Amino acid sequence: MNELFLIGIGTGNPDHLTFAGAKALNQADLVLVPRKGPDKADLADLRRQILAKVLTNPTTQVVEFDLPLRDAANPDYRAGVDDWHDAIAAAWTRAAARVPGAGRVALLVWGDPSLYDSTLRIAARLTPPPRIRVEPGITAIQALCAAHAIPLNRIGSPFTVTTGRQLRDHGFPSGCDTCLVMLDGENSFQTLDPQGLEIWWGAYLGMEAQILDHGPLAEAGPRILATRSAARQAQGWIMDIYLLRRHPAPD
Amino acid sequence: MNELFLIGIGTGNPDHLTFAGAKALNQADLVLVPRKGPDKADLADLRRQILAKVLTNPTTQVVEFDLPLRDAANPDYRAGVDDWHDAIAAAWTRAAARVPGAGRVALLVWGDPSLYDSTLRIAARLTPPPRIRVEPGITAIQALCAAHAIPLNRIGSPFTVTTGRQLRDHGFPSGCDTCLVMLDGENSFQTLDPQGLEIWWGAYLGMEAQILDHGPLAEAGPRILATRSAARQAQGWIMDIYLLRRHPAPD
Repeated sequence: MNELFLIGIGTGNPDHLTFAGAKALNQADLVLVPRKGPDKADLADLRRQILAKVLTNPTTQVVEFDLPLRDAANPDYRAGVDDWHDAIAAAWTRAAARVPGAGRVALLVWGDPSLYDSTLRIAARLTPPPRIRVEPGITAIQALCAAHAIPLNRIGSPFTVTTGRQLRDHGFPSGCDTCLVMLDGENSFQTLDPQGLEIWWGAYLGMEAQILDHGPLAEAGPRILATRSAARQAQGWIMDIYLLRRHPAPD
Repeated sequence: MNELFLIGIGTGNPDHLTFAGAKALNQADLVLVPRKGPDKADLADLRRQILAKVLTNPTTQVVEFDLPLRDAANPDYRAGVDDWHDAIAAAWTRAAARVPGAGRVALLVWGDPSLYDSTLRIAARLTPPPRIRVEPGITAIQALCAAHAIPLNRIGSPFTVTTGRQLRDHGFPSGCDTCLVMLDGENSFQTLDPQGLEIWWGAYLGMEAQILDHGPLAEAGPRILATRSAARQAQGWIMDIYLLRRHPAPD
């Protein structure tokens, strides 16, 4: 493996792929597709759909491999993640070795490789280090704003992108009136005083199962809790994201 | 015009377009292409390239129209922008009227319609209001991170996206160690104490003329000033963006 293509594939709609992403796929000798087992959230099916649709180079091979599991029992969370990332890098190397001579290897990355994703950090563990080429993809942030047909920022104003944990620990970010919350498995908006806040929420963005809600946080928050819980039960998994804006604000 | 498609086209590489964007174009009755005159930054050529490449529906028509100019002499900046946006909405309406029966109208939006872009706000001025459908596109933020092959955020950490003016007026945003600066025509990083800051800079991202630089701000800052000035002179225009990160930080 002397070159690694990290290709952003967007948030679940196979048509989120860019033409540049499709070209990179067809320039690869090998595409690695991770499998997490019976968990639907591994999105292996989405990756297979994309490959079936855009892969036209007959010499590009596809290899599926089992993604190692993180040792959730490790009391040192950071060390556990480190070990896990090492194990994933080793799994890529083993999977790539199944196709001798595969110099250009591609991975399909959910969303965009730059945004709350570990792929670049795992790639940095490969020895010898391959050249890295990133093809950007549509993020959940853009998919959320597109689905609601709203701008992300107010005119000329900053916004902060943060995580559920950060929101719980530090509250609404200071210095801005717009905040995008990702990686929130605990509906952390509940920890905020809802007065003056508006929420735009979306789950399964870009997918057939897409759900949206929007309103003053005081009203929409409880609705979202119920919707989210029912959807997670029905689908077996959920991925969601939301935008919070101080409201009303003079624009 | 009863439906308006706002299609994100990325940052200058025609291959940044998504398959969803290409589909939407081909579902439109009419595509409006703005012209700013001799200014290269109007990107009309890029839009024409994209259309030549992906438009296969023979019934979709393309109309070019002259984009109204903002009255820079208006002493009230906000009122000037309001008038300008009204004039653009009127220009869309007039241009669309040149194709009787064109119910579905598409506009190609640089980057993504949600990010520091006025198209959604201009669309809100149309009467009667058309249905709005947004197809997300690759932003300059993702193009920058892809070009440098870097993650945008540190693990689990927030980041702020802001403008050159905000950086000048308020300094490095509080509460985070990563800051993305857009719309900065004045190299506002110069107003910061460079100690402990690292910069990743990119201009003409995704285009053939793409230029990158990266390093400690104290060293890279002066280089970027010189490179930027020379490039703007050579090309007649420039679009750039940069990421600042507090460095070193324990990750």
